[in-house]
Amino acid sequence: MKKENSTIKVALIQQSKTADIAANRRRLEEEIRKAAAGGAALIVNQELHDSLYFCQNEDVDTFDLACDLTEGSGATELYSRLARELGVVIVTSMFERRAAGLYHNTAIVFDSDGSEAGRYRKTHIPDDPGFYEKFYFTPGDMGIKPVRTSLGLLGVLVCWDQWYPEAARLMALQGAELLIYPTAIGWQDTDPEDEKQRQREAWITVQRGHAVANGIPVIAVNRVGHEDDPSGASDGITFWGSSFVAGPQGEFLHLSPADREETALVDIDLHRCENVRRWWPFLRDRRIDLYGPLTRRYLD
Amino acid sequence: MKKENSTIKVALIQQSKTADIAANRRRLEEEIRKAAAGGAALIVNQELHDSLYFCQNEDVDTFDLACDLTEGSGATELYSRLARELGVVIVTSMFERRAAGLYHNTAIVFDSDGSEAGRYRKTHIPDDPGFYEKFYFTPGDMGIKPVRTSLGLLGVLVCWDQWYPEAARLMALQGAELLIYPTAIGWQDTDPEDEKQRQREAWITVQRGHAVANGIPVIAVNRVGHEDDPSGASDGITFWGSSFVAGPQGEFLHLSPADREETALVDIDLHRCENVRRWWPFLRDRRIDLYGPLTRRYLD
Repeated sequence: MKKENSTIKVALIQQSKTADIAANRRRLEEEIRKAAAGGAALIVNQELHDSLYFCQNEDVDTFDLACDLTEGSGATELYSRLARELGVVIVTSMFERRAAGLYHNTAIVFDSDGSEAGRYRKTHIPDDPGFYEKFYFTPGDMGIKPVRTSLGLLGVLVCWDQWYPEAARLMALQGAELLIYPTAIGWQDTDPEDEKQRQREAWITVQRGHAVANGIPVIAVNRVGHEDDPSGASDGITFWGSSFVAGPQGEFLHLSPADREETALVDIDLHRCENVRRWWPFLRDRRIDLYGPLTRRYLD
Repeated sequence: MKKENSTIKVALIQQSKTADIAANRRRLEEEIRKAAAGGAALIVNQELHDSLYFCQNEDVDTFDLACDLTEGSGATELYSRLARELGVVIVTSMFERRAAGLYHNTAIVFDSDGSEAGRYRKTHIPDDPGFYEKFYFTPGDMGIKPVRTSLGLLGVLVCWDQWYPEAARLMALQGAELLIYPTAIGWQDTDPEDEKQRQREAWITVQRGHAVANGIPVIAVNRVGHEDDPSGASDGITFWGSSFVAGPQGEFLHLSPADREETALVDIDLHRCENVRRWWPFLRDRRIDLYGPLTRRYLD
């Protein structure tokens, strides 16, 4: 991984969104420019950053938001251009229209020359009240593979993937140097306060656990602020922000606030990862002879 | 799982040990009796609770500590008898002599009638300065399977296993209702204070992560106190205690002190696990079609 003194500066852009996509993109561009001016080499955005989180209800008209993401379609031209102009790697998260009736939740990584370094289609798709993603997103069919960039191999996953140790491990086994999760997760406002805190803490903890188990830093970027439920069936979702970076022992390198926007610049020391894996060589001792049943749904 | 109001009371016995095995067992018996008197239905002991942690150096004479654990050998008669007399399930951790030159780190679970409910041989074996376990323990060959008891299915693993999400997942996929880790982990006294805290926190975090990823409570019982290095090559190990119970969202139900003995009684609400898995149905969405490569050492 390219690094000055083995350190890489990462930007996490945690924002609130409105229904005005052009305005969302303008505000995001401003923050990307600030992050680059601050020295960031890698800029990570939240999940579906161009729009509201539109999965609170099931509405066929919402598919109008999806974009053709084939080369040259223009949907991501802004981010490609910013990556090239600013000389940074940018991780984006888009609503992909692949064909009529076939949509994905897709992360595209632009390299610092503006070219597409690679993409990843979200593989684990949630579905629970307020997060009706199985209606919108076909489970990814590109596998779980890191994206090679000029900064190194990036293990880009998306939101619900973050609860799956299998996904993190597969990235680590393929040499990913960072785990990266664009996310949109929040509370139902009707949840009691202690339950809210348990949920937020669980979300942070399981991802810090991936950092520990794999000796690899984790970057999670979440949206923040309240969004109404268009159906009126619920009081909507308050996204809990709390974007963070954990080091290879799961230690916090940064934690953003839960209740407001922030563009954070965080230094990650990659040389430390090499050392942590020497101290705790978990990859050495995996009992691969016993892991076959992990490919089963349940062992009854 | 047998439970009154769906709650099970668990005891965690965190102790310091000496070279006097008879005295260690006497002191442990006292705590087991206290725990049962306090209402515990399940009593979990730390790793290798009968002795010092003897893996700080490699010494062939140390194999004298290992016990024949075939039925009727008498090595675990004390724990069988206590389980029957007190009507409790007891998780023990023993140094097993299976044959000349063939030893294991073996957990035996006694049911509340004193019978052996099942056993587990530690599968992931560490080896790093002060923890020379590959010298002493042959990797377990009994697979990763929960033990059926009158209290339910117990996912008993041992120490180094706790760093492996694969082991936790395999237990959950087989219906384990609790993850249980007898442990012996500590600091080299020469480590700086911030590194010590990162290590302890990582150890807690990765296991809380297993609780979250699987919607299952985790019980970890560690030893505490300083033990000298018999070789004199190091200043020895200070075991960091911090035994804990996490609920199915990874939330702390109990955390023992880092610097002294404690027998903790903790109530675990198993009905809550059923609910948490309904809210967060991670098992539903596993992409088992993509997990085959988890059986590979590395994907290069």
